[in-house]
Order: sequence, then structure tokens, then C-alpha cells
Amino acid sequence: MTVNEEYLKVYVEEEYMDLDSLFDPRSIAVIGASGRQGSVGYIYLDSIVSSGYEGKVYPVNPRYDELLGLQCYDSIESIGNVDLAVIATNKMVAIDLLENCANVGVKAAVIPTGGFEEVGEEGAELERKIREIASENGMALLGTNTLGFINNHIGLQINFNPRLLPSKGSVSIISQSGGMGLSIISKLREEGVGMSKWIGVGNRTLLDFPEFLEYLAKDESTTVIGAFMEGTERAKQFCELAARIVPHKPVVVYKMGKSASVDYLAVTHTGTGIGKTGAYKGAFRQHGVLTADSTRDLVAKLKALAIAGRIGGKQLGMFTYTAGPTIAAADLLNDHFTLPQPSEETIRIFEDFMKGAPPTILKNPMDVDGQGYTPESYQYFLNAYAADPGFDLLATVSTAGLLFPKDQLLEAKKGSGKPILHCHVADSIEIFGSERDQLHEAGIPIYTTAEELAVGLIALSEYMDAVKRILERGNQQPQIMVSASHFGDSILDEHESKMILAEAGLPVVEERVVSSREEMVKAEEELGFPLVLKVLSRRIAHKSDVGAVRTDIIDHETLMETWNSFKKKWPSENVLVQRMIHGGVEIIVGRILDPVFGDIITLGVGGFMADLFSPSAGVCPCTRQDCISIIDALEPQEILNGYRGTTPVDRNALADLMEKVSRIHIKDEKIDEMDLNPVIVKGDSLSIVDALIRKGE
Amino acid sequence: MTVNEEYLKVYVEEEYMDLDSLFDPRSIAVIGASGRQGSVGYIYLDSIVSSGYEGKVYPVNPRYDELLGLQCYDSIESIGNVDLAVIATNKMVAIDLLENCANVGVKAAVIPTGGFEEVGEEGAELERKIREIASENGMALLGTNTLGFINNHIGLQINFNPRLLPSKGSVSIISQSGGMGLSIISKLREEGVGMSKWIGVGNRTLLDFPEFLEYLAKDESTTVIGAFMEGTERAKQFCELAARIVPHKPVVVYKMGKSASVDYLAVTHTGTGIGKTGAYKGAFRQHGVLTADSTRDLVAKLKALAIAGRIGGKQLGMFTYTAGPTIAAADLLNDHFTLPQPSEETIRIFEDFMKGAPPTILKNPMDVDGQGYTPESYQYFLNAYAADPGFDLLATVSTAGLLFPKDQLLEAKKGSGKPILHCHVADSIEIFGSERDQLHEAGIPIYTTAEELAVGLIALSEYMDAVKRILERGNQQPQIMVSASHFGDSILDEHESKMILAEAGLPVVEERVVSSREEMVKAEEELGFPLVLKVLSRRIAHKSDVGAVRTDIIDHETLMETWNSFKKKWPSENVLVQRMIHGGVEIIVGRILDPVFGDIITLGVGGFMADLFSPSAGVCPCTRQDCISIIDALEPQEILNGYRGTTPVDRNALADLMEKVSRIHIKDEKIDEMDLNPVIVKGDSLSIVDALIRKGE
Repeated sequence: MTVNEEYLKVYVEEEYMDLDSLFDPRSIAVIGASGRQGSVGYIYLDSIVSSGYEGKVYPVNPRYDELLGLQCYDSIESIGNVDLAVIATNKMVAIDLLENCANVGVKAAVIPTGGFEEVGEEGAELERKIREIASENGMALLGTNTLGFINNHIGLQINFNPRLLPSKGSVSIISQSGGMGLSIISKLREEGVGMSKWIGVGNRTLLDFPEFLEYLAKDESTTVIGAFMEGTERAKQFCELAARIVPHKPVVVYKMGKSASVDYLAVTHTGTGIGKTGAYKGAFRQHGVLTADSTRDLVAKLKALAIAGRIGGKQLGMFTYTAGPTIAAADLLNDHFTLPQPSEETIRIFEDFMKGAPPTILKNPMDVDGQGYTPESYQYFLNAYAADPGFDLLATVSTAGLLFPKDQLLEAKKGSGKPILHCHVADSIEIFGSERDQLHEAGIPIYTTAEELAVGLIALSEYMDAVKRILERGNQQPQIMVSASHFGDSILDEHESKMILAEAGLPVVEERVVSSREEMVKAEEELGFPLVLKVLSRRIAHKSDVGAVRTDIIDHETLMETWNSFKKKWPSENVLVQRMIHGGVEIIVGRILDPVFGDIITLGVGGFMADLFSPSAGVCPCTRQDCISIIDALEPQEILNGYRGTTPVDRNALADLMEKVSRIHIKDEKIDEMDLNPVIVKGDSLSIVDALIRKGE
Repeated sequence: MTVNEEYLKVYVEEEYMDLDSLFDPRSIAVIGASGRQGSVGYIYLDSIVSSGYEGKVYPVNPRYDELLGLQCYDSIESIGNVDLAVIATNKMVAIDLLENCANVGVKAAVIPTGGFEEVGEEGAELERKIREIASENGMALLGTNTLGFINNHIGLQINFNPRLLPSKGSVSIISQSGGMGLSIISKLREEGVGMSKWIGVGNRTLLDFPEFLEYLAKDESTTVIGAFMEGTERAKQFCELAARIVPHKPVVVYKMGKSASVDYLAVTHTGTGIGKTGAYKGAFRQHGVLTADSTRDLVAKLKALAIAGRIGGKQLGMFTYTAGPTIAAADLLNDHFTLPQPSEETIRIFEDFMKGAPPTILKNPMDVDGQGYTPESYQYFLNAYAADPGFDLLATVSTAGLLFPKDQLLEAKKGSGKPILHCHVADSIEIFGSERDQLHEAGIPIYTTAEELAVGLIALSEYMDAVKRILERGNQQPQIMVSASHFGDSILDEHESKMILAEAGLPVVEERVVSSREEMVKAEEELGFPLVLKVLSRRIAHKSDVGAVRTDIIDHETLMETWNSFKKKWPSENVLVQRMIHGGVEIIVGRILDPVFGDIITLGVGGFMADLFSPSAGVCPCTRQDCISIIDALEPQEILNGYRGTTPVDRNALADLMEKVSRIHIKDEKIDEMDLNPVIVKGDSLSIVDALIRKGE
């Protein structure tokens, strides 16, 4: 494994801002605090006071002397030194109040008020002013339009919707939606997963996902980071930062936008379509960010990662006295784990105990049925199973009404030191309590359904892969700088595009531009048959459709015929003579300018099937390992593996090409789009047969 | 809508057995009852006694005078009239005891004991004897190897693992796994969904899924049927029965077997592969059975179906004061619902109330934000929204910590009469209680996550579609009987296969079998160019691979050349001369003998992509509407819709062909396999270009 040492030193080089004054303040002023129940000013003050915060709290409102038992102040100026101001007023006065805070040295602010950018230009103007004040004064600003935040470790809840919290723990959440953030809190509590910080990002007026991610990366009480994301313009920065964090702490994102109506489809003019979600998906994968599909899915993953920690391998031993849920879980594990058979020694230990009992099939998953109902027998079997050197981790299943093997799991965990994940078939109400907490404290996450057990296991497998991928990522190579200033048009023609690619060291098909019969005969001699003839024209968008391409020319006669017919129809255009390549797998490699991630690279199947599958993607520039990972995510994978008699694609060779494509820059100009369609791949031999480059302004 | 009246009369024509004595017994004997805690004989007696059952209970064990306060009997013979016997003994004595029960007229039995068929031939022999005794005496037998059953309405729990139950309700469960069945019970309880019956099917020694389904179909206290299924040989019967039940009661199945290791892939020798799960999936769809992917998914669907009931349309209005979870739910609804904009009248009513308040975007989903926090305003808005004639049903979202709009939902439901599904973002512990129960009683299911709200909504949409599909199914046409006795081989050659298909009225391509140059010239004259030449031989498995096919012959010279080369290599074989068909969409229609469902029909894409997509499937014979539904389930659908310039496939024409294929029978012989590969489809013009039929023994 090539470890990129850089990752192991620090999380981040760039320091955004010290957010301690925001999330761990020594004192808080609530500006616009109120005694009227249900008002924003009341809710925030009450939230802070009720949460058990031990720092200083200053209500600010000239109309009160005292609020909730605390002395009330006329203005922020009359208090003195304050770390954090919560500005719980309407948006029109919020700006002046924020300015006042800045003037007296308040270090951080929370602005819950909405009605800014999201309601139109007037609001956006106000929001710009707020950003300016905070930015110029170095204030850490949460909001606008935020539900607030929670620091569970110091018992501080600044939350529009204060509520029952999970216990103190090591999972922290960043949420772009208040409601979905609360949903995650609810399920963390229901699942007995402890929480450290909860951050409602709101309008991201100043601070955005990258800053919060950096803060949580450095936060010692956070070991696992979860996020609900609608979308951010700074997603690329978020991902790059995540790649540095992932080897230390897992990052799991539940990204909204599955349906076409919520997502959008960026279709380039050559038909290579990649949805916004596709770009996010590729970027997350490339940077080691795990993903989740629902609140419960996210919480099941966070639970395994926070409680069970890392796994050292993927040999899974499953043990139970109730087969059904165990098999149901195994059914979902797919390629994530292997279930090796127990060792002979393990079988012998089981048989010793079972002498005379009804015959049991001793295999993995191991179902000891009734023989596992008593604490003693369960312990005996589980110890032996956990000790089997063939297993890297265990998954166990029990059911309410029969033995809940709390003590047995604790002992097996202690004895073997292996990760154990457990499913107790029960309802959440039954299992809510101290026995589960004890197991969680010992590093054994408890699920109540087989399927969520599987999701938890899969998260551990995915995280192991993500860390490996990031550590093997290697360094990005420098830009490949090419010049295209001599090409006047913004859309380069096929030959010009290939010249650029050839200059960048890419394998373009051998070809000649010819403008006369003589030149063509010369090209025929140099290239040899079979040949392809194309009209070379910027004015023809779909050459094949109008008969401007003739493939598989195998003799001089046909070549001449084709020349004549081209010249008749397009007398003023040049002709491209190409060596014809037969067979191979058609692949499309593209570069497009994604509105969020900027330059991204896409990989798709070519030919007839091109429109049936979404391409996989990554953010440019890519390392070689990134490209391998993009290739591994291509659908359908079958196409790469010698489908229907084709030579299997050499993934390293394809990755080399992609890596170079991802690094190409045009001197003094931008690349809006590159479309290598197709690249014909035969094993490790690649030929770019057609290409198009579009420059940007 | 063509209503098939037959479905609306009765659920089932065939009567299996009266199961009332089993599930609603007036008296129960527990044979092998014991006072020893933890023993099977103790657990079952205790389960019955503790559950509050009001009928007579007779412990049977000569070693006791009394057990759990009940008089104990020496034998079943000493009791007299008994409806149900629970035989809680080891398997060796169970047979004699069952026989004793039969002799004294016991009507039903539960045998929890395992160790029969599942452990080998000796056990299987015992099991056959048990089946024989029960069958001959008309005893309703649950088990062997069952966890038991629950009749929640009479407070009877005969359950190895007695536990906390959901309230009395109308959902009934059939489970092939005890553990998964208990998992479903747990989640029904957690979700506040009432339960009627729970049946652990065990080894299905006598009674199987079809009998239990029929019982629940007729059971008045059951309105929705859920099942966890591993697999049953009688799945076809189950599906056929389900099709009769679905218009009256929804049936939802969670079928295990997603992964390749749990599933198996039935690959025919021509490469048409359909997994066992594929056959189940097709059969479920064809017969209107809904499916679920996990315990929580199943329970979320049962919840919507049992509590909200049927929907009359798919125009969905979404209403909330918290946008995030609402949009997250909407994001998952895909094609299941449309979200029309509220009417002008509705907008006006909203605006009237909002005068002077911050501007709110009035659209669907409707987020009234802070203006919906008070009971009065929430009620005002919700009433107006629910009254909008553009909405067939409503989905609403609230969050713990803010208004839980119980009374408002009740009023809106009462006022509008429309289905309402609600998500209250909270943990299950917070929401567990009487307020939720009140809403459930009023027909408003409450979910705690946005995603499960979406699953519930989707279930209602799926059920609406399933009922429509079943009611439009029409009648099956009679068999198409063809004769093939004159074909000696079990594998018919291409031409023989096509003769059968032509006899059945199917559009085979025009062709001639020729054995001499003269015959070929005659065929050339009759058919005209372009032509295809194939060596006609049973001995060549993959003709194309060995050069025994030549397509696109456009002149006499090439025809002769090809003839000569074929004759040189295969001198003794006949040659097939076919009219060549250019263009069109290649489709594969197949018939295979599925080990579970018998004759099934498959539909897949042909050509290069054939191995990339699993075919869709249905059980033979199919109605025309079944075939439309199989076509609608084909992946990828794009291929049918004019992909890349092809003429869109006429679904009716293809369905007609499939419907006939599904009805073909060979006189006095069986069809093991039919492979129409490809059928070339150009709009409504279809040609079977290649075909193969394999007869069975």
C-alpha cells in the first residue's frame, strides 16, 4: 500500500476560522430575547437556559429587567465581553444589531431569521450586507435562516425546536435542512447512538459545509461525521477536505435529489449526460465519502461506524439461535463480505458440547437453535466462534422473548477483541434502555432489524474500502499544458481536437487531413487499408446521419468513389483519412464543466448502448487510483470483462488515459467540454477514434 | 374498464379446508404440557394461559394432576371433545399422539417440533407419516417446525416465543421464518399498526401458503395480508389465489433471496437467464401481489394499506410547516404521484389569511412555515388545502417540538373525506401512545420519517394499479394445441420450431429448406433478395460462431458462393434460405420450465445487449393484459420507445404475440423450452427470425 503520508499528518492545511467561540462559547447574549412564549426571542433563550448550559447567558431587550430568572440588558454594548450573540429579531434590524456586536468584539453569531436570499433580490441584498459585516470582522456566523446548533457535550442547545436529545456521544451532524436534521436526531436517540454536535447550516451566508467539516474534523469529541445535504456550490472543497479527513474519521452524506424533478440532467450537446447527482456521487466516491439513502440508512451507518469502529478484514462469522433474520441479513451483504466456513477446531468444540443433542448443521451462518437459549451454552458457543481465526468480525442475532445475550456478547468481545455487531429482533420501545447502552459502550452496536444490521455491516466494509482507496490515491500529477490559440473557433474540429490530445500524449488513431486527390493517395499509401473517410467540417454536427462518414474501405476503388461523392456534396471541405480499427470495446471518455464541481471527467459505454447507462464520474484532476475507481463504478461492468467475446479491457491502461485527460489544460483558455467518443479498447491497446473539444470563453 | 365479474363474486372457488378449528378453537389440549420452566411443554401452555384465551384449555401429561392452575389429563382420550391439540413433545412420539388425536376427532393440530424434512431422509419419512395422518383424517395441521400462531382478536397466543403484541387490528401476517415473523410483529407494534392473525408456517407439512391465504381472505377481521416468504413449491397456486383476493384485500410479500448465493440462476442453454427471484417477481406483478424489500418497508406498506385504505386518484397535495422532510418524501415518489399546483381559490384563501405576513411561496408542496405553528392557523390552511378539488389525497408533515396537529388532521379528514398520510418527525418512543392511536383509528397513518411516508404513499399507488390491472386482466384464452409428434428429436431444429410457431398463428419469417442447388434457386426466385443462408443442423449449437450463417446476401453470385462453402464444410446438411429483415428492434421471447412456477414466459432485449439485462417474466398462460404488464416491466424500457431512431415497438402487437406463445401446447408432449430469438419488431410488424423449441419427456 502506497501511503500518502501527507494525509496522516494533519486534517487540513488551510485554516478557515476558529469556530470554538461559536460552538463552545464561554458566554452567550440573546438579542431580542422575549418573555412571550412562542416568540422566537423566547424560544431561543429558553432553549439555552433549559439545556443546562453552564456559561454566562445574557438576555438583551430594553423592555425587560429580567427574563427566565436572568438579568436582562438594554443592548449588547452594555454587557462587555461576549463570545456568541444569538440575534433573534426580524431581518430588518438584524443587520444593525450584527454591526453593534462586531463593534464590541463579539466573536460569533447565530442568525435564525429567514427571508433573505431565498425570497428574492431584496433579501439577497440584505444577506450580502450581513456576510460583509461578519466577514470583515472575522465573526463566525451560523445562518441566516438556521434552526441553530447543539453542543451535546457542554449541554448547550441553541435550537428553534429544542427537543429530546440522544446521549452524549461521538457522532456529529451537519444538516442543510432543519427538519431532516431533527429527523436524524430523533433516530439517533431511538437507536441509542450518542451525539456530539448538531449544526443546522441554514442559508450558509458565511460559513458553509467545508468550514463545519473542518471544525468537526478537529473536534476531539467527534469521531464520525454525518451530513444531510441538499447541495452546495462549495461541494468540491467539501470533498477535497473530506479526503483528508476520511483516513481519520468517516464522513457519511445523505444527499437529496434522486428524482428527475429535484435533480437536473446536464446533457452536453454530444449527448453525454450526467445528472447533478451523478457528479456528486462520483465526487463522494473519489474522496472517500460514504453515502446513505434515507434517515434510517444514515443512522444505521453512523451507528456501526461510531460504535463498532474499524474492521481489519472482511471475513464475517454469523452466529445465532434464529436462522431467518440471520439469513435475511446475509442475503443483503453481496460482495461486501465473505462468509468462510468455521475451522475444524471450531466445529470440534461445538460437537463436544452437542454430544447427544439433535443433529445441527455446523456452518456459517451458524444457527445453534434451541441449544443457544441458555446463557451458558450461548456463551460456550459464541466464545468458540469468536475465537475462530478465520473470522475478522462477527454478526450475531437474537430475538426478544428469548435470551438477550448481553453478558455473553460483552465477554466474547472482551475475549476476542473482534468487532461484533448484533441484531436483537424487537421493537425500539422494548430495547430502549440501559442494557443496550452497556453494549454500545462496549463497542457492540445493537440493531432491531436484520436489514439494518446488514446496512451497518456494509458501512464498515465501505469505510475500509474508502480508507484504502484514499491512502492509495497517490499524488496528483501536474497539469498537462497544451496550446490551442492557433485554433480560432471555440469548437475545434475532429482533427484539431485530436492534435491537442496527441500533444498531451494520448493515443489518437493515425489519420491525415487531405485536400486533394493526390494527398489522399499519399495517405492511402502511408496508412494502408482498411480505411475510414470522413468529411472534416465544423458545419456538420452529426456526420454519420448525413452520409459524411464511410467506414471499412478496403480497396482503392471504393476510396476513390467515396472521395468523389464527398467532393460532389461538400466541395469546399477537407477530408479526413483514418486507419480503420476493427473490434474492441467502445468507451466514451468525456470532460464537462459541471456547475458545482467545475471540470469533471466522465466515463461511459460507447456505441449503441451509450444512452442507456449513466456515465460514472470524477472531479478533475484525478489521480490514477481515482480513475481506477471511476472505472470500477462504470455501468455495466460486464462490458469491461470480455463481454460476448471481446478482449477484456485493461483497466490500468484505460486509467492512464483518463488520468491524462483529467489533467489537460489549454493555455490561456478554458476547456468547456471534451468528448473522446469512442475510445476503442482492445486489452491494453487504446485508440481515440473520434474526438471533440470545445473551448470556453 | 373491463371488469372481470368473476373476481367480484367470491375469493376462491376451491375450498381447501376449514381452518376455524385451528385458528379460532373453542378448546385446546396441550399434549406434553409441563411444569418445568423453559421446556417446550411449559412454554406453549403458559403462552396460551397468559394470552387471555377464554376457551377451554386442557393440559395433557400423566405425570401431573394440575398445571398452571388447570386440571391435567392423562391422555387426549380422557378429555372428550377438543378442537385443537398442540403436540409439544419430541418428534418420535408426536406421530402416535397425532394418531390418537385423530381417533378421538380432534379437528386441528399444531406441531412445533422440528427435526423432520430439514434434517434428512429419516426425518422426511416421519414427516410423510404425519402428513398422511392429518390428511386422511381431515385435520388442519399447522407445522411441523412452526413457532405457532396468534389470533389477536380472541387473545390467543400459541407461540414458542410469546411477546408484546400490537393492538387488535386488521393486518394479518403469514411468515415462513419464525424470527422474521417476530420481527414483523415487533415493528407493527412499534409503528402502532393493529394485527389480527399471525401464522408461522413452519415446514408446511400439510397446510401451506395457499391455505393460509385463503383463510385470511375469508377472515372478516383481516383487511390486509402481509407475508414473509422464503419460497414454496406452491407459489403458482398462491399467486393465482392472490389475484382473486387482491381486488378485495391487498397482499404484500417480502420475499427473501436477493443475492446470487441465496437465489439461483436458471440459465437455459440458449443463454436466456431468469433468476428464481425473477420468476417470483413476474408472478407477483402479474397477479397483483405487492412486494416489499425489508421488514420496515413491509410494515410501512401494510400501515398505509390498513389504515388509509384505498385512494381514488394520484393527485397528491403535500402540506407542511417544515420543508426539508416534505421535499425528501416528494423526491422518492417518482412516477407514482403527480403534485398539481393548488387551485386559484385555494391560493386566495391562503392569501386572505396571510395578509401582511412575510411573503410565502404558495405552491405544492405547500410550506406555510411559522404561519402553521398555531392550531388555528394550521387548521385554517389545512382545511383549505384538503378542500382543493385538485387533490385526491394529502400527505402532511410536522415535527416534534412544534405543533403535533392531531385535532387539525382529524378535522381535515372528516371535512374532506380524503385519504391523509402524516409524518411526524420524531422518535418512536416519543410518538408511542394514544394520540397516534386516535389518528390511526380515524384512518390517518402516522410515520416518523419522510422516507417511510413515501413508502406508504407508494404502496397506495401500487395497490391502485394492481387492482386496476387485475380487474382489466380479462379471461385466459384456451390452449393453442399443436402437434409435433412427427418431429423425432427432443430438440426441434430451427425450421421445425418455426413450423410449430406458424401453426400456432405466429408471424415467422418466410423461409425455405433446400437440399439442392435447384431448390435454392427456386427459393431465391420466390423470396427475393436480400437473403440469409443458414446451415440447418441440430448438431451445430452456435451457428454464427462456426460460420454456418451468412446474412445480407444481395446477389445470386454471393448466394452461390455461400452455398458452395456450406456444402464443402457440411455436405450432408440441409440449408435454410430466409428473407433478410433489416432494422427493427430485436426482442427475445422465451418459454422456460421454472422449477417453481412451471411454464413461464420471458421477455428480454435481443442482440448485443441480451446478457446485460434480466428478462421480465410471467406465468403461462397469460392474458393479453398480463403480457402488456410484462412488456411494461421490461428493462430497458428505452429500447421500446424509439431508441436511437428505431420505430417504437407497438406494445399491443407484441402482447398479442406473447399471449399466443404463452398458450401453445404440444399434443401429448411437454414443452421444456421455447426461444424466439430474435423477434424483430418494427412498429406493429413482427417477424420471428430464429427460434428453437425443446420438448420434454
